[in-house]
Amino acid sequence: MGHSAEQPIDNFQASLQDSFPIGTKGIWAEHKDNGRYSLIEEEISLPTAVILQSAVDHNIHWMQAFADKHQVKLCPHGKTSMTPYLFKKQLEQGAWGMTIATPAQAEIAALTGAKRIIMANQLVGKANMAEVIRLQSSFDVKFYCSVDSALNVQQLSAFFAERGQQVNVFIELGVDGGRCGVRGIEAATDLARLIHQLPGTALAGVEVYEGVISGDDTETRVRQFIAETVEFARSLKDQGLIDTKEAIVTGAGSAWYDVVAETFSQYTDLLPVIRPGCYLTHDTGIYEVAQKKVMARAKKNHGIACHLDGDLKNALEVWACVVSTPEPGKALIGMGKRDASYDAGLPIAERGFRNGIPIDVTGLSATAVMDQHTFVDVPADCDLLVGDVIAFSTSHPCLTFDKWRYIALADDNYIVEHWLPTQF
Amino acid sequence: MGHSAEQPIDNFQASLQDSFPIGTKGIWAEHKDNGRYSLIEEEISLPTAVILQSAVDHNIHWMQAFADKHQVKLCPHGKTSMTPYLFKKQLEQGAWGMTIATPAQAEIAALTGAKRIIMANQLVGKANMAEVIRLQSSFDVKFYCSVDSALNVQQLSAFFAERGQQVNVFIELGVDGGRCGVRGIEAATDLARLIHQLPGTALAGVEVYEGVISGDDTETRVRQFIAETVEFARSLKDQGLIDTKEAIVTGAGSAWYDVVAETFSQYTDLLPVIRPGCYLTHDTGIYEVAQKKVMARAKKNHGIACHLDGDLKNALEVWACVVSTPEPGKALIGMGKRDASYDAGLPIAERGFRNGIPIDVTGLSATAVMDQHTFVDVPADCDLLVGDVIAFSTSHPCLTFDKWRYIALADDNYIVEHWLPTQF
Repeated sequence: MGHSAEQPIDNFQASLQDSFPIGTKGIWAEHKDNGRYSLIEEEISLPTAVILQSAVDHNIHWMQAFADKHQVKLCPHGKTSMTPYLFKKQLEQGAWGMTIATPAQAEIAALTGAKRIIMANQLVGKANMAEVIRLQSSFDVKFYCSVDSALNVQQLSAFFAERGQQVNVFIELGVDGGRCGVRGIEAATDLARLIHQLPGTALAGVEVYEGVISGDDTETRVRQFIAETVEFARSLKDQGLIDTKEAIVTGAGSAWYDVVAETFSQYTDLLPVIRPGCYLTHDTGIYEVAQKKVMARAKKNHGIACHLDGDLKNALEVWACVVSTPEPGKALIGMGKRDASYDAGLPIAERGFRNGIPIDVTGLSATAVMDQHTFVDVPADCDLLVGDVIAFSTSHPCLTFDKWRYIALADDNYIVEHWLPTQF
Repeated sequence: MGHSAEQPIDNFQASLQDSFPIGTKGIWAEHKDNGRYSLIEEEISLPTAVILQSAVDHNIHWMQAFADKHQVKLCPHGKTSMTPYLFKKQLEQGAWGMTIATPAQAEIAALTGAKRIIMANQLVGKANMAEVIRLQSSFDVKFYCSVDSALNVQQLSAFFAERGQQVNVFIELGVDGGRCGVRGIEAATDLARLIHQLPGTALAGVEVYEGVISGDDTETRVRQFIAETVEFARSLKDQGLIDTKEAIVTGAGSAWYDVVAETFSQYTDLLPVIRPGCYLTHDTGIYEVAQKKVMARAKKNHGIACHLDGDLKNALEVWACVVSTPEPGKALIGMGKRDASYDAGLPIAERGFRNGIPIDVTGLSATAVMDQHTFVDVPADCDLLVGDVIAFSTSHPCLTFDKWRYIALADDNYIVEHWLPTQF
């Protein structure tokens, strides 16, 4: 294994005076002595992904305040951004730990300073287990992963016990028709006994992902599922099956974190942990829709989300140029599947500029996307020209982040001094 | 600008003895002295993207032979892989140059040794133009880009002439309802006169992308469009509007390269260049379908494709583990939108292994994909277990490549000694 686990991350951000990998898209600019590059003035090669600093800072504060007021721990899902600079900000603002999806992501969380890491997924495969062995040996970190089968528990226990280690596991409870997770409390209790009994696994609590629940009356079903989850965690504790100091109960993506936190906060005998990820940059698509529902529920229930500073804001954009206007009513943008997410809606034009001056982009509508192009319908009264610069928001954020090795960090005037390395 | 344009790429491949960036997925393995890591024996962390060396070598030869026999130049579209190791192989086997989509990609092509670079897209935006200025100043390279509007031609000429340079441009011809490109020969001829007349632009020929033609009787329409394209290029030459030594005519993605090459090869007064990209690794989805049509046309027309060594082979896979079997008939794979393309069909199970022994994966069918998971329907007679390793092919290749910073290069026994860095 070529890279050193012990070397902490120190390149949280880079300026154009630093050395970039060759050919990295979105980081070319002609040198300026002041190191300040204007997106509006076209001083940075496009397309480029942009983090709006004030919005991302606001969101980090907002969700931490939400968790603090509910007396639940915030363990943000880092898979969204995989951006050490943002992990560090989340931890500095009070995050209890970082959630991740894979051992490779866990390493980034550890190197960024997380002391508690929840891998909200099953740890499967010898090389992946070996990576966690190394993580636990190299870092002062508590690692947790999910299990939902006796076979995986046996595999984990054998692997970790043989190497003189234990791995902390959560039982993942699932729902019929859902994703991973044990179906039913009886099977889950049997699994708890096995974990408790085997030498290489330590039962640390219960994990769920309520985001797979959909259909009619989702809110009621989510509340019910979370209540069952908490009851199950308490029963494990009562039966003496929890092997760690604290019995953790953990759930919540960025759509139902309010419902999960409300339910969790009714119990003081467990350590409740929520794991939203997409709140970090939010979006103008599926998470905007979900957050509107959060705010509507808060208004109805006098929930805490109403009493915080404002609301989540979109903090992630892709800036790109109009490259062609080949037919009336049609424009092509120099941005495609290689640059922006397209799995939950196409990019949305937020702002436009021509030679540094704002232009109206109202009514522009993306209709299709190819590897390096986006097709846009242009209203008759819009005089879009080749070379116009447009800032697009996207849906959902995870799949915009993973298209970029460096993301420009912009102030409120769209001036960029630093680029944030991602670690996908 | 932080990176040095003059430093050639020398890290075409990396072994696990080399230093990898931290947290890079798919490259963890416990050290082996012989440096040979078995995918089947789970010696590499999964998921990981895998290039099958013999298949990719075969495909590179195959397409070069196809182009050579048609006496057309092959300028492979590098955007597919953005993998310098593979660019180098394509150039070594006889490619005339590299095609790319953006100035950042052009830099990689130049650093890999390409002497001719076709940017089969419009060059728009001051920072992007500045990057090409730098490229032309730093490398012994001929750069060409496409134009389809007078405004872009004026922008380019002003920018390049002010800096004492010229940029070679192709007029892109488009089709009604298509993507970029001038609509109609009259407008295209006007544009040619403008290019010829302005100081910063040099007209080098005509570029098309016939891949946007679809619907009824596509083949006839493609043939007609390519014939018109060639006639237009000849008329530009006849009118003395071509500013470069040779008049180039260029087209062809990986679906219609046979039709394009056949038409091109009927003319000897132009330099014909085809630009397929996805043939490199091929796939088992949309390009397999397209290639079957190529072979069917060749059979019917006694085409050259029938007289080459075999056919294109899939050379790109993502290997991943079964992480959960939560309900009868359902399995979850530890591979998702972060790891494999999903825009033109979901991943397809090709082979399976359990503890190093082959298992049958016939009938497995991916039904949905999330960021880090793939849902698979499992036939009743298939006993898939947590921990089983499955090799998946994908569709289409470009969007699997761009998920990875390193791709494992495997021999026919699925042994990996080197990882190939990508440069997205």
